[in-house]
Amino acid sequence: MGDPAGIGPEIIAKAWKARELHSLAPFFVIGNPKAIAAVWDGPISIIGSPHDAASRFAETLPVLPVGEAHEVVPGFSSGDGAQVALQALEIGVGLARSAAAGALVTGPVSKAQLYQVGFTHPGQTEFVAERCGISADSAVMMLAGPTLRVVPMTVHVALAQVPGMISQELILSKARVTARGLLRNFGIERPRLAFAGLNPHAGESGAIGREEVDILTPALAQLRTEGVDAVGPFSADTMFHPRARAGYDAALCLYHDQALIPIKTLHFDDGVNITLGLPIVRTSPDHGTAFNIAGSNQADPGAMIAALRMAQSAAERRSATSAIGLP
Amino acid sequence: MGDPAGIGPEIIAKAWKARELHSLAPFFVIGNPKAIAAVWDGPISIIGSPHDAASRFAETLPVLPVGEAHEVVPGFSSGDGAQVALQALEIGVGLARSAAAGALVTGPVSKAQLYQVGFTHPGQTEFVAERCGISADSAVMMLAGPTLRVVPMTVHVALAQVPGMISQELILSKARVTARGLLRNFGIERPRLAFAGLNPHAGESGAIGREEVDILTPALAQLRTEGVDAVGPFSADTMFHPRARAGYDAALCLYHDQALIPIKTLHFDDGVNITLGLPIVRTSPDHGTAFNIAGSNQADPGAMIAALRMAQSAAERRSATSAIGLP
Repeated sequence: MGDPAGIGPEIIAKAWKARELHSLAPFFVIGNPKAIAAVWDGPISIIGSPHDAASRFAETLPVLPVGEAHEVVPGFSSGDGAQVALQALEIGVGLARSAAAGALVTGPVSKAQLYQVGFTHPGQTEFVAERCGISADSAVMMLAGPTLRVVPMTVHVALAQVPGMISQELILSKARVTARGLLRNFGIERPRLAFAGLNPHAGESGAIGREEVDILTPALAQLRTEGVDAVGPFSADTMFHPRARAGYDAALCLYHDQALIPIKTLHFDDGVNITLGLPIVRTSPDHGTAFNIAGSNQADPGAMIAALRMAQSAAERRSATSAIGLP
Repeated sequence: MGDPAGIGPEIIAKAWKARELHSLAPFFVIGNPKAIAAVWDGPISIIGSPHDAASRFAETLPVLPVGEAHEVVPGFSSGDGAQVALQALEIGVGLARSAAAGALVTGPVSKAQLYQVGFTHPGQTEFVAERCGISADSAVMMLAGPTLRVVPMTVHVALAQVPGMISQELILSKARVTARGLLRNFGIERPRLAFAGLNPHAGESGAIGREEVDILTPALAQLRTEGVDAVGPFSADTMFHPRARAGYDAALCLYHDQALIPIKTLHFDDGVNITLGLPIVRTSPDHGTAFNIAGSNQADPGAMIAALRMAQSAAERRSATSAIGLP
């Protein structure tokens, strides 16, 4: 559910209402059922086990209750709410790892509140990676919309720190996980990865910065020797118009805004965050808690529906390939 | 005309053909008429003076000839071509300054070729600024499309150099020229300027970089005391989706890709480069020479038509306001 006082409960309920229109596979909510009742008057089933979800899903929204002793006021975040969000996340990872759930979709949380209650990971992604026994470096955040997928190779660091963090090792590691992830989750046999340069015009052959010549070009050559279809580095500004996007399966970008400006410009309302490199499927709507509109029935469920659909299709693909012995 | 071997001649001829559809005011070409004849079989008038252009424009494309002794092979750039482009630019600035022309629209040039023939300015913008007696710092490059205008406050510098270049002085200077330019060229009485932060999430109050706290926030406060409607700094990734764009007249960005990624993602085929802060109106299609397709009749004149229309409307506005004594 994510934070019970954010828009999570509302977009989950709206997604359930649209389950037939979008052919959504059965899902259940982990979180405080009061949070849903506070923003929605539709039918809820309290379930005691994930196994009960499928039979209830057609008629009611199944909820595996966590933290139901707490009251919820939409829009007012609290330490209690953050505790419940964290507990729900922990249970969700466990159920996905045990295969009691086919995939995990996480709702938006308040990092500020989570830090107040002792959460020490940078975000949900790193928490999920750790619980899966994966180093945070090996879990790759991809943001995906209907016409673009991007991977930021560095994330929440000051721009001044970015050039010092760009290395061949970083690029090779992110690219390998991305290529495997596109196969496992999206069924793309030989994904084409397009790399953005760090500098304007990708450095103009070293005239405006040397990272392209010294780091990116050799890393891409190495990837090609490994059979990865890696192209670039390209001038980042000309990578994201419609004709350019048609030429690759994912754009690998070197810093937060280089990746997030294009994806949020194009897919602000239907972008999905999918974590590659995990043993489980994990997606998330690519937006925040929006406390300012929580409880006012204004939240757009588009990204949650897209996250549910992407989780479903990735889970079906993985289960099909593992049945026939593919990686 | 820009480089005679690039797509300039073709998009100029196509713009002239579409003059009625787009209600284009009379214009004339400065450049080698052979370059146009090489890619177009429509009617050309060789004119001896700008004053002859208006009467010829309805029936023919008027050309003020420069460098007509040279042969032109579309797609093959040369030092001769760069010389002619530079000479045409020089004449164009002079005619606009003398008011023999109402505005200057510059075609795409090859900087590499220009440097070979002794051109020492970073680009046409800085050349035009110098010829107008304006310091290059006071000429502001704005890129404008139908749904977005952006100003990059630094341009062709390595990303690692950007944080060290961000200062309150830079921001104040660019913002003041931008606000005046939006009034003079676009008629926006009290333009709203939205500023991007440098760091992810605009630094999260200093947690991910301090430039927003130490430089941007005080600079924006100063601008507001001067009556400039300056808002931000905002997380750059959430500034460019349609609802966000509706909230401002121009986005001021701190580096090349932060500004150029969104404008080229949205307006790759119809973006216009307009120089603010000059005594003349100067626009340019926001694309390059495209030597690879020159001569093959594939070039899209959309950006050239948009540059002509923007020049026309800015020139009409300036002439109206100067007639009634406004700045």
